[in-house]
Amino acid sequence: MIITSKNNEAFKYFKKLKNKKYREEDRLFMVEKSVAIEEAKDYKPEYILLSETSYNEKKFEDIISGFDEDRIYIFQDNLFKKISDAVSPQGIIGYYKYLDRDFDRDSGKYLYLDDVREPGNLGGMIRSADAFGLDGIILSLNCCDLYNPKTVRASMSSIFRLPIYKMSREKLVSLGFNLISTSINRSLSIRDYNFKDRDIVIIGNEAKGVSDFLMENSNMSINIPISSKVDSLNANVAASIIIYEMTK
Amino acid sequence: MIITSKNNEAFKYFKKLKNKKYREEDRLFMVEKSVAIEEAKDYKPEYILLSETSYNEKKFEDIISGFDEDRIYIFQDNLFKKISDAVSPQGIIGYYKYLDRDFDRDSGKYLYLDDVREPGNLGGMIRSADAFGLDGIILSLNCCDLYNPKTVRASMSSIFRLPIYKMSREKLVSLGFNLISTSINRSLSIRDYNFKDRDIVIIGNEAKGVSDFLMENSNMSINIPISSKVDSLNANVAASIIIYEMTK
Repeated sequence: MIITSKNNEAFKYFKKLKNKKYREEDRLFMVEKSVAIEEAKDYKPEYILLSETSYNEKKFEDIISGFDEDRIYIFQDNLFKKISDAVSPQGIIGYYKYLDRDFDRDSGKYLYLDDVREPGNLGGMIRSADAFGLDGIILSLNCCDLYNPKTVRASMSSIFRLPIYKMSREKLVSLGFNLISTSINRSLSIRDYNFKDRDIVIIGNEAKGVSDFLMENSNMSINIPISSKVDSLNANVAASIIIYEMTK
Repeated sequence: MIITSKNNEAFKYFKKLKNKKYREEDRLFMVEKSVAIEEAKDYKPEYILLSETSYNEKKFEDIISGFDEDRIYIFQDNLFKKISDAVSPQGIIGYYKYLDRDFDRDSGKYLYLDDVREPGNLGGMIRSADAFGLDGIILSLNCCDLYNPKTVRASMSSIFRLPIYKMSREKLVSLGFNLISTSINRSLSIRDYNFKDRDIVIIGNEAKGVSDFLMENSNMSINIPISSKVDSLNANVAASIIIYEMTK
């Protein structure tokens, strides 16, 4: 019942899922925070893994009760550590199906992330968007991986609740929503703009900002006014303040 | 001229300064981002260290030009790495005197950080406060170390520009400013409060929130309204939104 060998097929399988290539093939991502697994209880995991210690201590009885036993795997602690992505594993991992959605809305307020590359920033923006009730986040095709364990961790369980879409820049423009780029120059202060339905604010890449293509194709441009001595705000902070204003 | 031995006294000295104990004794902290060192040019470092490579490539000529040669040390790359705290060292480190200030203001708007423990959060709050022109940040006695390299890094160069003070909770109460705690329950939405001169907003510890002592001794309480499904905002994001509202 407790898996103790590195040659075990289940061990090999779950260890491979840490790798993006295999994660994409099977379209499964991992959640390691027990709080997030509990909060996401409307989403049934495909598998639950427990460490030997957490199993023996019955630490997660509430989570696994009623869950199909064939889909629970228990690993010796040292093997569990190799499957886990956490620095200090909590002793539980849930594996969930990818949450892909097609964009079929013709109202609402959204962020479009134009190649945001840092998983902690992406996860943080998802958490803030969910907290403030934004209608969703749309990712450009070259954003960092939504299902990277760091993204999932930073989102808390908001990755399950917030509608998240993926879309090319060209497709975004073709939607006909009001596209608002973010830029420091020649733009309106966010403090002077009243956000409305069908606004989509474009958040740029951490280093390069909004792409030229979307700068040219946006309907207007806004900025968060800051001291001229300060180069920029942290990307997650800037996006979260914009979300806070959008949902006023 | 280029230090190549682990037995060199300068090597031993600078390596020790990574340790908080020795940093406190000599009251010197390190800055590793060349951008931050450039931006902080009103503050003269006590020492500048270069890696052999950055010295040979003359990467930081602008920064060291005019700087007292006796206070520049050049280390072989592998020794430099041991002195550095960065994952990918840029090849320069500036050592600066502690920036302690006494609180002698009777006007302005401030944050009081009530045992904020995470260096990245503290550094991020300093960056946002500087960006939005808050009058300063006051640290409780058990906040994480202001001079931790992670705090310094996250603050960018804002640690030099923003007035930062340290003060006990009792002293804070004795100032007679308008103390505003942050709490989810029975409090006013931040969207409905107009911040004014002599407001000090208290940001709680990441896990425990605002201390009972300051809850009891504050004049009022505010919250950032969020979805009931979301546990909390990221601490840096929450503090940054409060700063954004305070400086409106």
